[in-house]
Amino acid sequence: MPLAEFDLIREFFAHSAAGRDDVVLGVGDDCALLQPAAGMELAVTTDTLVEGVHFSNGADPEALGHKSLAVNLSDLAAMGATPSWASLALTMPSSDRNWLEGFSRGFLSLANKHGVVLIGGDTTSGPLAISVTAHGLVKPGQALRRSGAAVGDQIYVTGTLGDAGLALLARQGGYTVESGLVQLEQRLDRPQPRLSAGAALVGIASAAIDISDGLLSDLGHICEASATGARLSLEQLPTSVQVKSYLQQSGDWGTVVAAGDDYELCVVVPREKQAELDSIKSSLECDFSLVGEIVAESGVNCIGSDGDVVTQLTSGYQHFD
Amino acid sequence: MPLAEFDLIREFFAHSAAGRDDVVLGVGDDCALLQPAAGMELAVTTDTLVEGVHFSNGADPEALGHKSLAVNLSDLAAMGATPSWASLALTMPSSDRNWLEGFSRGFLSLANKHGVVLIGGDTTSGPLAISVTAHGLVKPGQALRRSGAAVGDQIYVTGTLGDAGLALLARQGGYTVESGLVQLEQRLDRPQPRLSAGAALVGIASAAIDISDGLLSDLGHICEASATGARLSLEQLPTSVQVKSYLQQSGDWGTVVAAGDDYELCVVVPREKQAELDSIKSSLECDFSLVGEIVAESGVNCIGSDGDVVTQLTSGYQHFD
Repeated sequence: MPLAEFDLIREFFAHSAAGRDDVVLGVGDDCALLQPAAGMELAVTTDTLVEGVHFSNGADPEALGHKSLAVNLSDLAAMGATPSWASLALTMPSSDRNWLEGFSRGFLSLANKHGVVLIGGDTTSGPLAISVTAHGLVKPGQALRRSGAAVGDQIYVTGTLGDAGLALLARQGGYTVESGLVQLEQRLDRPQPRLSAGAALVGIASAAIDISDGLLSDLGHICEASATGARLSLEQLPTSVQVKSYLQQSGDWGTVVAAGDDYELCVVVPREKQAELDSIKSSLECDFSLVGEIVAESGVNCIGSDGDVVTQLTSGYQHFD
Repeated sequence: MPLAEFDLIREFFAHSAAGRDDVVLGVGDDCALLQPAAGMELAVTTDTLVEGVHFSNGADPEALGHKSLAVNLSDLAAMGATPSWASLALTMPSSDRNWLEGFSRGFLSLANKHGVVLIGGDTTSGPLAISVTAHGLVKPGQALRRSGAAVGDQIYVTGTLGDAGLALLARQGGYTVESGLVQLEQRLDRPQPRLSAGAALVGIASAAIDISDGLLSDLGHICEASATGARLSLEQLPTSVQVKSYLQQSGDWGTVVAAGDDYELCVVVPREKQAELDSIKSSLECDFSLVGEIVAESGVNCIGSDGDVVTQLTSGYQHFD
C-alpha cells in the first residue's frame, strides 16, 4: 500500500513536542496556523543538508535528523532568538520506514529539548536532501546582527573550534585520532546549538554570527557588515585536546579557523559591556573565550605565537567552488 | 572566482519586491527578522519541486521560478491567507548564471505581483531541487480549514480542471492537442494561485483545500477531516475546450479529477451563505463552479451523466507509490 505524503508526516512526526500555545493548527492542512506572541519579532532561517555534499551516503538517520534541525537552531542562536517552530522539506529516494523512524527520532528529540514544534512540511521522492525552515522569537530591536561591531570591541567564540573538521578528516582517512574520536564525531554529527548563550548575550553583544562556515569566513561577514576588520590570536582559540594534539603534529590552523561545521557562535562585545558579560558568563552552559579584537583596518588577520600575521589559512567552505 | 552562497542570493534576488514594512531585516544575516501585524495569525507552508519528479530535466528556469513559488502561494490561497514572505532553499548541480537569471526572474515576478518579499534561504550544490516556505497572514480564527464541511454544504471549484494533466500527457507524447496547446502548457508551467478567491471566501466557505493532488484525493482530505463524504457531478466539472475535446475522444475523467497539478481550490459553502457568495462571486477573478454536495456517507463518489456512480477513476498523485 502506498504510503502517502500526509500519512508519512503524520505517522513519524505525530509525536512532536508537547505543544505550544502559539500553534493554532499544526501538521495536516494546507498551511500551519500560528499566533506569534504579541509585539515579538520573528526570526526565520532555512538550511539544507544534501547527501554527498553535507553528509555521506549511509549516514546515521538519527544523527541526520538531529543535525538538520541543529544547523537551523544555530542560526537562531546567532540572532539571540528563542526557537519556536520548524518546517521540514524531506526529499528521499524511497519510503524507508527504518530510516524515517531514526530520522524522526533524532529530529524530534532535539525539537523537544528546545520547545520547538514541527508545524508541517513536504515529503517528496528524489535524491536524499533535508531542508528545514526554523522560526524563533526575539524582542523587537534586540536581535544580534552582523552589522553592529565597532573598533575596539572584543571578539569571543563559544565552545571549541576545529572538532568537526578534524572528525571529518579522520573519517576520510586523513588523520588518525589517538583517543577521543567518539567525542569529536559527536561534535560533527550532533552539534548542540548555542541557544542559551545567544539568548543570554542579547543586550550585551554588538554583533554575532554562527561560524558553521569557519571562523575566518564568518567573522569576515561581521567585518564586512560592520565596515571593520578583525585581529585574531591563534593561540587564544579554544580547542579540544584532540585538536591540540593534531595542531602539534600538523601545524594546520586551517582546520581550526576554516574547516567549518563548527556550530558555535562568534560574538562581539563592546568593552563597556564587560561587567555585564561577566555577570552572565557562568550561565552560558559552554566555554566563552576571548579570541581577538575588532580593528579599523579591513580584513581578518590571524596572529601567530610570534606576533606575526599568519597567512595561507585555507578559507571557509564555499559552495560552487 | 567562486560564487559564494551569500553573493549568489544577493546578486540574483536583490531585486525583491519594493519592500514591506513588516520585513525588519531581509536576506544577509543568520536569520531574517519580521514583525507580523499585531494580532494576525501566521499561515506557513512548504512545498518542494524535484527534477525528474515534478519537472523534467531541462525545464525552463523562468517557469520553474514561477511555479516553485506558485505552488506554495496556492496553499496560502486555500487557507484564505494573504501572502507576505518566502524563503527559498535552492539545490543545484553547479552555479549556472543563465539558469539563475531566468529562475530568479520567474520567482520574483510572481512574488512582486502578490507583494511577497524573499526574506532568505540557502543555496547548496546537489541534484536540482527547489523548496520554498511561504508565509501569509490571516485574521485569527478566520482561516479556511479542511475540517469545517457539513452535510448539505455545496462544493465548488475555481478555474478549470485537467488542463495541467492534459498538458503533461501531451508533452509525454500520449495525446495530440489540436489547438490551444500553449494555453494548456501555461496552466502546467505557470499556475496562477487563487489568492484573491481564497481571501474573498473567508467568512463564507466552511472548508477549502488546494487540489494540486487532484480533486478526488484532495476533496477526500476535506471529507476525512470533516467526517463526511462527498458527491461530485462529473458533468458539472468545469473544463477547458481542450479538455472537453479530449474527454469526448477518450472518456478519461481520471485526467480531470485525479491527474493533479491543477492549482485550483475546492471550496465548500453552506447553503445559508449562498447570498453572501453571490455578492462576491464577480470579484473572484476566476470561474467558480458548483460541482457537488457534501453528504453523510463517507467517501467521494463521482456521478456520471446517467446518474450512476463512476468508479475506476485513477486516484491522485501520491509519492512513494
